[in-house]
Amino acid sequence: MPKSKPPQNEPGRYAYSGLDRLLHERARLSIMTSLMTQSNGLLFNDVKKLCALTDGNLNRHLDALIKAGYLEVWKKSDSVRSQTLYRVTTAGRQGYLAYLHELERLVRDAMPTKLSPVAHQALPGWEPAS
Amino acid sequence: MPKSKPPQNEPGRYAYSGLDRLLHERARLSIMTSLMTQSNGLLFNDVKKLCALTDGNLNRHLDALIKAGYLEVWKKSDSVRSQTLYRVTTAGRQGYLAYLHELERLVRDAMPTKLSPVAHQALPGWEPAS
Repeated sequence: MPKSKPPQNEPGRYAYSGLDRLLHERARLSIMTSLMTQSNGLLFNDVKKLCALTDGNLNRHLDALIKAGYLEVWKKSDSVRSQTLYRVTTAGRQGYLAYLHELERLVRDAMPTKLSPVAHQALPGWEPAS
Repeated sequence: MPKSKPPQNEPGRYAYSGLDRLLHERARLSIMTSLMTQSNGLLFNDVKKLCALTDGNLNRHLDALIKAGYLEVWKKSDSVRSQTLYRVTTAGRQGYLAYLHELERLVRDAMPTKLSPVAHQALPGWEPAS
């Protein structure tokens, strides 16, 4: 009977394909995390402050998340001012939680490396090339 | 005395600026995680399989990590074949662990959102705009 590979050596073991590109981008991950913590949504300026983004950057990434169906937009205006509020949709919540699940897997994989030593020694039979 | 803001509302609270761009790129995160679990290094073909990357992609991202001082390269060749091995450096370990620290903070922030409900209801005074 052929010996099966230990799970840590399986092809694609460290590929983390569940780290969806839409959410893995740092600014979008930041925006989605801030909004996930506020189920009633946040105003544009609140997201901007909490995520330390510029107007232009925030607008660009909000657009991508809205286009993906991950956020919904609400408006309110009176004679004085107009306000915009963003809220996570059901699809956005599902997408975020799936991403988070993969992120937790990565963190679990990486945990033991905190304790593992750095190898400083030469490797017998090998020549340094950098 | 002015009331201080609760910590979850602090400016930049969700910015995660410790998610260093070099390591946050998914392929490089994948490569570094696989190599962090193997303190004696891995051969090119092993990293390729474990991370499910093409030769070209792997080469490109390895170059970026070597240039940053995060990986070192070792060579071995005989009359039959030549082999290349990659190993995490001390700087690479430090960079990875700092990145991991910020990732764990994000996961902790996001944990409670697993239980939080999705808001489906209309927002009194607001008009849907998307």
